[in-house]
Amino acid sequence: MEQIRVGIVGYGNLGRGVKLAIEKNPDMKLSGIISRRPEAVKWEVRGEIPTHFLDFSTEYTQEDFNVVILCGGSRKDIPRQGPYFAKYFNTVDSFDTHKRILWYRKKMEEAANPGAHTSIISAGWDPGIFSLERMLGSAFLPGSKTYTFWGQGVSQGHSDAARRVKGVVDARAYTQPIGKAIDEVRSGFTPELTKRQMHRRLVYVEVEKGADERRIEKEIKTMPDYFDEYETAVYFVGKESMAKDHKRLPHGGFVLTSGKTSETNRQILEYRCALESNPEFTASVLVACARAACRMNKEQMFGAYTLADFPLAFLSPHTGKAFTKKFW
Amino acid sequence: MEQIRVGIVGYGNLGRGVKLAIEKNPDMKLSGIISRRPEAVKWEVRGEIPTHFLDFSTEYTQEDFNVVILCGGSRKDIPRQGPYFAKYFNTVDSFDTHKRILWYRKKMEEAANPGAHTSIISAGWDPGIFSLERMLGSAFLPGSKTYTFWGQGVSQGHSDAARRVKGVVDARAYTQPIGKAIDEVRSGFTPELTKRQMHRRLVYVEVEKGADERRIEKEIKTMPDYFDEYETAVYFVGKESMAKDHKRLPHGGFVLTSGKTSETNRQILEYRCALESNPEFTASVLVACARAACRMNKEQMFGAYTLADFPLAFLSPHTGKAFTKKFW
Repeated sequence: MEQIRVGIVGYGNLGRGVKLAIEKNPDMKLSGIISRRPEAVKWEVRGEIPTHFLDFSTEYTQEDFNVVILCGGSRKDIPRQGPYFAKYFNTVDSFDTHKRILWYRKKMEEAANPGAHTSIISAGWDPGIFSLERMLGSAFLPGSKTYTFWGQGVSQGHSDAARRVKGVVDARAYTQPIGKAIDEVRSGFTPELTKRQMHRRLVYVEVEKGADERRIEKEIKTMPDYFDEYETAVYFVGKESMAKDHKRLPHGGFVLTSGKTSETNRQILEYRCALESNPEFTASVLVACARAACRMNKEQMFGAYTLADFPLAFLSPHTGKAFTKKFW
Repeated sequence: MEQIRVGIVGYGNLGRGVKLAIEKNPDMKLSGIISRRPEAVKWEVRGEIPTHFLDFSTEYTQEDFNVVILCGGSRKDIPRQGPYFAKYFNTVDSFDTHKRILWYRKKMEEAANPGAHTSIISAGWDPGIFSLERMLGSAFLPGSKTYTFWGQGVSQGHSDAARRVKGVVDARAYTQPIGKAIDEVRSGFTPELTKRQMHRRLVYVEVEKGADERRIEKEIKTMPDYFDEYETAVYFVGKESMAKDHKRLPHGGFVLTSGKTSETNRQILEYRCALESNPEFTASVLVACARAACRMNKEQMFGAYTLADFPLAFLSPHTGKAFTKKFW
């Protein structure tokens, strides 16, 4: 069996997760890492994987990789890297700025098509699997209500926001779903829930010596867009606790769809993931999508796709009779 | 907007559910019911829907329906009706004999292709959504273990089996997942579980006057293939309780996938449905698939498909920008 040659673009938490996931998929091979700091990466992977400098003047050749997985951030990296690499390779990414997905999709469509490449965009668990489950719930139960709960888990965006407060050395913000709300929906009620009724936030903060904790707490709790619409608790912890108790990146969540098929019969669908490592799981989804992108490319399915736009069987290493016997 | 004209073949619990589901989807219209007892159906639907006699000599024309939904049983009806109707129309069914799906798929492929029709087979929740979730769990978490739990819910096959015991007037068999096993998997363990450790069965039985309850109980509990591999409890109830407490058809279940992405990080995915009416929910899935089959047919995707073989966006009444904004 010829292995799929995968490239990683960007080697942070997500890129490291992709390396681990490729190692668990015998039909794939990590063929190179493209990074802004290739020397550091080379050292980290003990020279076992070819590393390349990431710039936007290199003319890549298709021989290097069958597919590249974009592991940079959605704010600045992917909007530029996506269209650039889609010119040269099949690509997969987890672009997660929900409001800009339509815009990004169009850019990727335009970039991938001329070179007959396939790009799977906005894959991961949300957007990605959760989007798919919201869609399925709505299609299977017209007139239903869908609820998405996140957590308990680390919100990187909210952690970054808390870190920007003056006097804060480090911060870790957790999103916590409110159990009462989940229980209500699971019991068959379909309440209108405000943001505050669905989630609370817990922020663990390490501050500079002598910093005004009351001011910091107030600034965090009232920060618009991030914390002001939630019940937020702020805890001050030392450097040691921050390093020991808050180094992991768990996450997860629930998509609940509740609807009636007749006067008397309510149907409730629930998709849930409980992740000990958010980046490692997202990486695993991306690697399955890398397999799909290569297969779709062989079937001449060019352009940009989300998880709703291609037959999901492409994700599985199993095919044909074995596939049906195993899952159906 | 031109509505999709849907036909129902077979008007039992599932067919009635399909009628209800079509009424909840404004882009669809129930255009006819084909039944072995069209007069009774006509009376039941108050003459509001054209009813036709089901036989295998009628030469149907494509003008009648854009798609027909096969609502008969998997043992005898669908294996014959599927290939017959796929000659004339796009079709959707919930053929659920897991072991014969490959055989059935081939038959449907051969029947649908010559007339350029599209057939979605084995849709519903299991096989169907659960199959899809088992496949996704396996693709996203290589090396993981997947567990399927069913219930609590009525098993029609086991109810029928209990009814065949001499002296039994009526029976209702419930499948119940064993909470301890679910909790274990949810907590991150990946035990090897026997059938007995995953499910138990409860059978409510109404017997003939003077029947030997001890013999009946023993015959049920030791019945091979059906009850002997499970802890089974048999309860004797009167006619009234049978009609009052056991008339509904709830069901549901869980697909749990548990795997590690690295030494330290376990990831658990769970799909769950809690259904107050099994046939009404299955019907809802079939109706969404009817929409998909018509769209796929327009895109010249002919032949037989399961839920893993086509882009799931085809299931949704939402399209384009509205689709992305709503779900992504």
